[in-house]
Amino acid sequence: MKAEIISIGSELTSGQNLDTNSQWLSRRLGEMGIAVGWHTTLADDLDDNIAAFRIAGGRSRLVLISGGLGPTQDDLTREALAQMAGVELVSDPESFRQIEAMFARRNRAMPERNRVQAQFPLGSAPIRNDHGTAPGVWLQHAGCTFVAMPGVPAEMYAMFEEQVRPRLEKLGLSGGVLVQRKINTFGWGESAVEEKLFDITRRGHVPEVGITASDAVISLRIFGRGASLELATLQIAPVENIILDRLGNIVFGFGDEELRDVVVRLLAEKRQSLSVAEGVTGGLVAQQLCRVPGAGRWFRGAIVAYDNRIKLEMMAVSQALIDEHGAVSAAVAEAMAVACRTRFRTDLAVSTVGIAGPDGGSADKPVGTVHVGLAWSGGVDSQSFSWGGTRAHIQSRTAKMALNRVRLLLVGA
Amino acid sequence: MKAEIISIGSELTSGQNLDTNSQWLSRRLGEMGIAVGWHTTLADDLDDNIAAFRIAGGRSRLVLISGGLGPTQDDLTREALAQMAGVELVSDPESFRQIEAMFARRNRAMPERNRVQAQFPLGSAPIRNDHGTAPGVWLQHAGCTFVAMPGVPAEMYAMFEEQVRPRLEKLGLSGGVLVQRKINTFGWGESAVEEKLFDITRRGHVPEVGITASDAVISLRIFGRGASLELATLQIAPVENIILDRLGNIVFGFGDEELRDVVVRLLAEKRQSLSVAEGVTGGLVAQQLCRVPGAGRWFRGAIVAYDNRIKLEMMAVSQALIDEHGAVSAAVAEAMAVACRTRFRTDLAVSTVGIAGPDGGSADKPVGTVHVGLAWSGGVDSQSFSWGGTRAHIQSRTAKMALNRVRLLLVGA
Repeated sequence: MKAEIISIGSELTSGQNLDTNSQWLSRRLGEMGIAVGWHTTLADDLDDNIAAFRIAGGRSRLVLISGGLGPTQDDLTREALAQMAGVELVSDPESFRQIEAMFARRNRAMPERNRVQAQFPLGSAPIRNDHGTAPGVWLQHAGCTFVAMPGVPAEMYAMFEEQVRPRLEKLGLSGGVLVQRKINTFGWGESAVEEKLFDITRRGHVPEVGITASDAVISLRIFGRGASLELATLQIAPVENIILDRLGNIVFGFGDEELRDVVVRLLAEKRQSLSVAEGVTGGLVAQQLCRVPGAGRWFRGAIVAYDNRIKLEMMAVSQALIDEHGAVSAAVAEAMAVACRTRFRTDLAVSTVGIAGPDGGSADKPVGTVHVGLAWSGGVDSQSFSWGGTRAHIQSRTAKMALNRVRLLLVGA
Repeated sequence: MKAEIISIGSELTSGQNLDTNSQWLSRRLGEMGIAVGWHTTLADDLDDNIAAFRIAGGRSRLVLISGGLGPTQDDLTREALAQMAGVELVSDPESFRQIEAMFARRNRAMPERNRVQAQFPLGSAPIRNDHGTAPGVWLQHAGCTFVAMPGVPAEMYAMFEEQVRPRLEKLGLSGGVLVQRKINTFGWGESAVEEKLFDITRRGHVPEVGITASDAVISLRIFGRGASLELATLQIAPVENIILDRLGNIVFGFGDEELRDVVVRLLAEKRQSLSVAEGVTGGLVAQQLCRVPGAGRWFRGAIVAYDNRIKLEMMAVSQALIDEHGAVSAAVAEAMAVACRTRFRTDLAVSTVGIAGPDGGSADKPVGTVHVGLAWSGGVDSQSFSWGGTRAHIQSRTAKMALNRVRLLLVGA
């Protein structure tokens, strides 16, 4: 049983507004153990709405609709539901009274147009709206439950939580409980991760394991399903252990944890202070760290040495070193890390140099060439990479690589 | 002729991730005069994909698909397109060579699994991907054009702009011309801007003028419509002049121009060098500037003095000043700007101090208190603000305020 979520409004299909209702409803249904197979977004067009409701009813047993319940001419959900079901729209006196009362509470006369909001497909039930004028619609048709709610997010949230969720729970549509565990990795590509986990990411594996990539962070999601929370959770641990065992220290965190969160946490745990010397990343490493509340306790500061003169003057990098190796070199990255550690008097210092493009590349050092240096009490080293992609990508990946380098040192890898 | 946009990925239908690709593509098609009738989002399920492609092909003449082109087993778009069209998947040697080259540039061996990314439905054409491994697919079937692109937003954006848009323009699907002019402002709230423009932003005004707010940047969009580009463009100029006249120097740019772009351009035009001393923004001002290609010419560098000791030692702020005014004060912001200008030997220096929260606030200086300092040949000054919102918001707005302060000095306001 997969559910479908339908959002209605030309402001959505035109791209004027971003649809966030579908995501919100998917999460709520997921929590109830109901998987969502489709999101459909439609313009305010009667025929398109009727056709889409028919398609949804043919492939789902539950269809949640938001939008199109307002009082204006382009609010067509009531009419489209009625035509799909082949029934008339009829007025509901109780809903009419509630709409009038809502206007009275706001000290406004009810415009004639709002009368239409008290009309419902024959055989459907109104869903009370305590937060706006548009009641929802609950309609059973051809083995499918259609639930229409207002499109305004706050009104929809309230109607779902207060009126719809309790009724859905009674329907027993849920296939049980769905529990997700997300494991975040950095360091390998998506296909390399999948190769290591080929047996458990294959289609049909129980529990299901999905892989997603987001700006060089590769995440695994384990979906545990069961009749109860306990049973669903039980499915997860064995697969999680396999993943952790096979992927080792490329795993950096769980759930919404980002590399920056983990680095800030590890700095505090290990009582190590950090400073940053940034060339190619231009402040991005520092800015990532500073996004984490409390980062300032162990992250002391950074120098953005975008200009070579700044590398010379403020980072104590020698002209001879630049002449010999070039400003974009492992040697200069290491010298910057060492100088930064001294200047800021921190336990650790990480540095970045590179060519983010679009200009500045050469045959020898193409755009995307970067070096990350790390200085600590035990010494200094550097890593070199060659990234593809845009300027923003190169900067972002290099910053993550710098954070990851600090993480690996702190976990003792 | 209405187009359909399809996004593929169980991470979208489950609500884990928010689909923003559909909105982005709708806007691009809207700019080309192509209306969008449907957004469909699908889980990674082969049969559902085939069925949805059939539905889309039956009601649209153009279907843009994003997602499902990766190398893993749950990437099913190629297979689903082939099955829908009733053709085999065949290997494309040129795409294979490009994927290999992409890995070679990153100094990595191509995993066996990536081979599948060079497979295409017989009769389709590959779409080159210069920003990732997944080529797109261009397939004509039963009177409909299917265009499949990667799901990673940055890759999809680049492929659409570089490869897909030019080909779509040649197809002549558009039903008239829509021209947009976007005017970006910073400094006033959304309702203050709307009050100044009440007469031209009302519903039904021709041309239509929309207001959107995105992280303190308020943008006006003028939509010119007509049978030709010339006629559509003619609608725009009179309204644009009204807006520019009424809003004055809060207007900083047009189209996709960000504050950072304008500052980098103005620095070059006025031949002024800039350095940055960041407290509360933690590197964000520097990082914003460094995102702009060529920023390094006039932006010399930054110090992130997150820790008070760094303000003392590296920014020459005196303990007495901190004792008297506190580290978060206009006086310290100004001292940091002056010291930064001296240290980096730049024409201008801008500084930020403040309390981003969630901790660290007091009755006297609540979370959201920030000061932005500016030093130039003519002297030094500072501005103080009290922002609401999250840590990320406070940092982001303060960084924009710092960039805007530099902009206003450079335009002589």
